[in-house]
Amino acid sequence: MLTATREVEIEFGDCDPAGIVYYPNYFRLFDTATAHLFELALGMKQAAWARRYGIVGIPMVDTGATFLRPSRYGDVVIIESAVAGFGRSRLDVGHRLFNGGGLAVEAREIRVWAGVDPDDPGKLKSQAIPEEVIAALSVTAR
Amino acid sequence: MLTATREVEIEFGDCDPAGIVYYPNYFRLFDTATAHLFELALGMKQAAWARRYGIVGIPMVDTGATFLRPSRYGDVVIIESAVAGFGRSRLDVGHRLFNGGGLAVEAREIRVWAGVDPDDPGKLKSQAIPEEVIAALSVTAR
Amino acid sequence: MLTATREVEIEFGDCDPAGIVYYPNYFRLFDTATAHLFELALGMKQAAWARRYGIVGIPMVDTGATFLRPSRYGDVVIIESAVAGFGRSRLDVGHRLFNGGGLAVEAREIRVWAGVDPDDPGKLKSQAIPEEVIAALSVTAR
Amino acid sequence: MLTATREVEIEFGDCDPAGIVYYPNYFRLFDTATAHLFELALGMKQAAWARRYGIVGIPMVDTGATFLRPSRYGDVVIIESAVAGFGRSRLDVGHRLFNGGGLAVEAREIRVWAGVDPDDPGKLKSQAIPEEVIAALSVTAR
Repeated sequence: MLTATREVEIEFGDCDPAGIVYYPNYFRLFDTATAHLFELALGMKQAAWARRYGIVGIPMVDTGATFLRPSRYGDVVIIESAVAGFGRSRLDVGHRLFNGGGLAVEAREIRVWAGVDPDDPGKLKSQAIPEEVIAALSVTAR
Repeated sequence: MLTATREVEIEFGDCDPAGIVYYPNYFRLFDTATAHLFELALGMKQAAWARRYGIVGIPMVDTGATFLRPSRYGDVVIIESAVAGFGRSRLDVGHRLFNGGGLAVEAREIRVWAGVDPDDPGKLKSQAIPEEVIAALSVTAR
Repeated sequence: MLTATREVEIEFGDCDPAGIVYYPNYFRLFDTATAHLFELALGMKQAAWARRYGIVGIPMVDTGATFLRPSRYGDVVIIESAVAGFGRSRLDVGHRLFNGGGLAVEAREIRVWAGVDPDDPGKLKSQAIPEEVIAALSVTAR
Repeated sequence: MLTATREVEIEFGDCDPAGIVYYPNYFRLFDTATAHLFELALGMKQAAWARRYGIVGIPMVDTGATFLRPSRYGDVVIIESAVAGFGRSRLDVGHRLFNGGGLAVEAREIRVWAGVDPDDPGKLKSQAIPEEVIAALSVTAR
């Protein structure tokens, strides 16, 4: 699978009174990491590829994370992100955050390739993920 | 002027590694306090009164705050909010945040009563604040 | 188990350009809900009971959430929180967030009852959860 | 004065239901920009220079911002930051955020060079800013 790698510096405002990243903020980092993975795969920003494929986006259905070691203000961490599997409209995304060479957080996401429901414009409806999107996210090296 | 008073408990996630409220989070508290002031004055939520008066909202033009003493996780603070003055389309809002009986933060906002620009639907255009809105925000006691 | 119920109004700043709660913010709501559950059970705020039991807190080891339906700015949601199970030092906490009568988000947390490691003051070490804490969180009604 | 320039990509989670950056989040960006300005000037991260000069940090006393035009998800903005003036222990910092070549936000900060109060370790006390810090922040070009 295509793996996107990002370097992120932990900001003061990401951290809590214990001096470590407040865990809800990791989910913000991972959401951004997923956006970067798709940008890398599809060669354009999310707003552009969503328009191109006629969808609204890839909303989150389920997410979780395991916290193995804390990160602190000023730490420069590495986030590796890749799709772990595809369903018809389902995308499983995995993230691994490394700090000082060690795995610090592991996260998983289930997202859906979703457009506007033609029967109810106020709702979303899952759509089949286009083959070329699957192909772009599946390359082994780039 | 009508003064709205709110009690807010400082959350763990509002605080930084120094153990005190991370100052950007005060602006979120004050934005919510302004929404409550208008809800109190107009008797409905922001989405409803914006629709009723045909505007988009009251976007922020300028805001600032003075930090006199810190607040910590678990502190229950009081926020007093009132409009400080009106222009044709301009609203000056003031907030005072008290902690343990003492003034801890003082904030000011300049907002604009704004609707969609009829000449360019992608832009906002300031509109005259309706007299009844000014009246509702100006009552001395309630 | 003791169930804590909270009513929370969704704030403008909790929501994203899709007009719905940005999902990382749910984890902040659930962290606060866990703090309230323990406050209800133990009759004092987290800083106080952590001091009383000689621990640092109950850091998160693993958390996840399933998003069933979106919530929007101004929605008043209900969060029900309870411990789902105890290990020696492990606490499983569950949250259910209801909006308009329907289940909207379901979340699970694995936390650890942790104090300072006597062999390394810079680290945490899990401790056995006191019997009275388990008892207070296990009452069926209050 | 030394001017630090940063390029920042606006993230989805920075934006609100109006599709633009939620203004409290600008203060987080500017706080990080000030940290980078001092890192550039002093050649080390904040934790390191605070330790070196025996202070706690440069807490915010007063801040404000003027919002001239909105920024949206995916916009790459430029933040220029510089000290605008020094008092004995006071630092005035200014930020200018540009989007698409135009000035979008202008912000000002008053911070204090502060250490632990020797008479009360639970409090902060302002200290004179060292000459070399003033010199490092005052260079015209680098």
